[in-house]
Amino acid sequence: MRIRVDLKCEEIPRCWYNVLADLPFKLDPPLDPKTRKPMPPEALTAIFPPALVEQEISDKREIPIPEPVLKEYAVYRPTPLYRATYLEEYLQTPARIYYKYEGVSPTGSHKTNTALAQAYYNKICGTERLVTETGAGQWGSALCYAGAKFGLKVDVFMVRISYEQKPMRKYLMKLYGGDVVPSPSDRTSFGRSLLEKNGEMPGSLGIAISEAIETVLSDPKAKYSLGSVLNHVLLHQTVIGLEIKKQLKILGEEPDVILGCHGGGSNFGGTVLPFIPDKLSGKPIKIVACEPTACPSLTKGRYDYDYGDTAGMTPLLKMYTLGKDFIPPKIHAGGLRYHGAAPIVSKLLHEGLIEAIAFDQDEAFEAAKTFAKFEGIVPAPESSYAIAGAIREAKKAKEEKVEKVIVFNLSGHGLFDLSAYV
Amino acid sequence: MRIRVDLKCEEIPRCWYNVLADLPFKLDPPLDPKTRKPMPPEALTAIFPPALVEQEISDKREIPIPEPVLKEYAVYRPTPLYRATYLEEYLQTPARIYYKYEGVSPTGSHKTNTALAQAYYNKICGTERLVTETGAGQWGSALCYAGAKFGLKVDVFMVRISYEQKPMRKYLMKLYGGDVVPSPSDRTSFGRSLLEKNGEMPGSLGIAISEAIETVLSDPKAKYSLGSVLNHVLLHQTVIGLEIKKQLKILGEEPDVILGCHGGGSNFGGTVLPFIPDKLSGKPIKIVACEPTACPSLTKGRYDYDYGDTAGMTPLLKMYTLGKDFIPPKIHAGGLRYHGAAPIVSKLLHEGLIEAIAFDQDEAFEAAKTFAKFEGIVPAPESSYAIAGAIREAKKAKEEKVEKVIVFNLSGHGLFDLSAYV
Repeated sequence: MRIRVDLKCEEIPRCWYNVLADLPFKLDPPLDPKTRKPMPPEALTAIFPPALVEQEISDKREIPIPEPVLKEYAVYRPTPLYRATYLEEYLQTPARIYYKYEGVSPTGSHKTNTALAQAYYNKICGTERLVTETGAGQWGSALCYAGAKFGLKVDVFMVRISYEQKPMRKYLMKLYGGDVVPSPSDRTSFGRSLLEKNGEMPGSLGIAISEAIETVLSDPKAKYSLGSVLNHVLLHQTVIGLEIKKQLKILGEEPDVILGCHGGGSNFGGTVLPFIPDKLSGKPIKIVACEPTACPSLTKGRYDYDYGDTAGMTPLLKMYTLGKDFIPPKIHAGGLRYHGAAPIVSKLLHEGLIEAIAFDQDEAFEAAKTFAKFEGIVPAPESSYAIAGAIREAKKAKEEKVEKVIVFNLSGHGLFDLSAYV
Repeated sequence: MRIRVDLKCEEIPRCWYNVLADLPFKLDPPLDPKTRKPMPPEALTAIFPPALVEQEISDKREIPIPEPVLKEYAVYRPTPLYRATYLEEYLQTPARIYYKYEGVSPTGSHKTNTALAQAYYNKICGTERLVTETGAGQWGSALCYAGAKFGLKVDVFMVRISYEQKPMRKYLMKLYGGDVVPSPSDRTSFGRSLLEKNGEMPGSLGIAISEAIETVLSDPKAKYSLGSVLNHVLLHQTVIGLEIKKQLKILGEEPDVILGCHGGGSNFGGTVLPFIPDKLSGKPIKIVACEPTACPSLTKGRYDYDYGDTAGMTPLLKMYTLGKDFIPPKIHAGGLRYHGAAPIVSKLLHEGLIEAIAFDQDEAFEAAKTFAKFEGIVPAPESSYAIAGAIREAKKAKEEKVEKVIVFNLSGHGLFDLSAYV
């Protein structure tokens, strides 16, 4: 029978966990895009509200989650932790596989965890309009939902190829009142300059970020909102890992391997960061970021300062990067098509606290189909890379005849991506 | 904060509830389509396996759920019961509104509850191939999933207009290995006869049923599978209402009003039938079927014998019907576009034990949008009629200043129907 651990509403974490307080090393500071000199945090308030800038650099271990955000988390949190008994049976593995399921959120992925927090902090500091970019639409739909909840207008620059090929999340954004345009668009000078060269340009996340930032800089009532990469985004996502810890404790389990898929790093970071203190204290936990071979920033990128966007408008971040001009192939996991990686994740990898592994799309889809059939959930193409990682670990446990405990985050459902499966 | 009642896996009902054992009246027997005389149950074994025919006419109060079906129920059951606190707050109603959420099933609606049971009983009696019809695709995808679970081939005749306009559920059926063709098709003589007259014919559920039955009658290894209307289908769906009873008991609540949307009657019946004994014993429970004004079988149909399909191949059932040739307008709630109604539901309505009410599509969609925004779940267009009913009751409670307990079934999510919302 199914094993599923549901926490009560009262057990939603009251604080986010800030890993920076526990790391034995410091992150390299962001650099100003013009001078390439360390940037004072205040400079970021041009595009982010002060509370988020403060979280970006905070060294407090626990940061309280405001009540209005908790109330909105309670719409879908705590999310369930499942034991993948049906998958284990199929794999005939001695491993015990657990997965946290973030697809129960209103927009179907973990992205609402930070969207609601960002919308709240913007609302209380007087922001009227949030501007962002989105690839496949998970982030954009989460922010539109959060905007509807807190009464903010939301503008989304959606990578043109996704806008055209994957209309469902566009509909979801519109359902929540969002204003969605394909990027490159004629709403910004950067977009217009690209469209002049190529009116059919498919776009990329880096381009859409540039358009969003340009828009924000021209409207004093607007702020920019980013769905991954930055410290405060990973911070908000730690509710995932904090809940997993409570759920594993109820089961009396200690994880041997923890995995998450990796694009910009938000679901991966949110899942694994709360386990870093255990790792630092000597527990033998293997922490694995699973990325596509098509966009291998962690496994093939260089560890260096780079821009977050294509136009070079963002601060430079120290991270694993394939270069700001890298245009990844059109794999289905749109959310993993990003040239860089979160500075926190990059640093952890560089320091050897975590590992990274790349999977071909074929292996990821095969894993996803098996999962859909046996566990009854169609995974997001992004999450499929974590499943592929978990299945490899479970097979290894079978070969080695060891009872490993494998935990991964199923960051979202793939109901909007079904066309990719057939 | 959110109130949500999760039962444990061990609390999945062990038996389905058969209301026929408790009714103070008998159902009128099905009639043979050729002779129009009462039909012996054995005649049904041409298209259904014996165990299901037995359930169709059983007078046992409790029918045990086989272990392999329970194991598959446990993939997604028990399903949660939520209190709609966010909606109540918005409506400023003194009513307490609860909803059971069946959209957590692998294919997103309650249909798997009977699909898994039907696939199991077919498998054990040697069926190799299941044939069925589907409108918007909820039923077809549930049966394809169940077929994949129990190792049966599944053929689906999908109403052509849905096949073309709503490709997502078609992809879902294919993901689970189903063979899906648009109906009318060239695979049956009835389909060919229609296509000869009109090659672009949009199709209807009645036509697709005729094609499925014709297919089954020409293949001794095949059986037919129906997703609604019949007694055994409603029986399997009673896990919904049985779980609701346990969940309300935990909360210490007694329902004043119970609602479900109504197409063929399976989610409605499954939700309300376990409450019929309470009603018969004198408890003042109002039980309401919510249907679209565009297909008002319960509110505008006649109570009479009629065919279940368009070609007149099925037995005649005593039911509320708009006539087998009725082609409903193309409302988005494809699952509610059926000319007839379950004989059990029809009889309960005729005897005054339940009520029926019809809603315009506009009111249903308005209710669904409000629900999506406040409760964080995008409802299936079908389920939206139940929400509209619940909201009307909640507003009435506000006017009357009474603390009513309103319970409805949210039979599925609307993620595949988003284009209808914008």
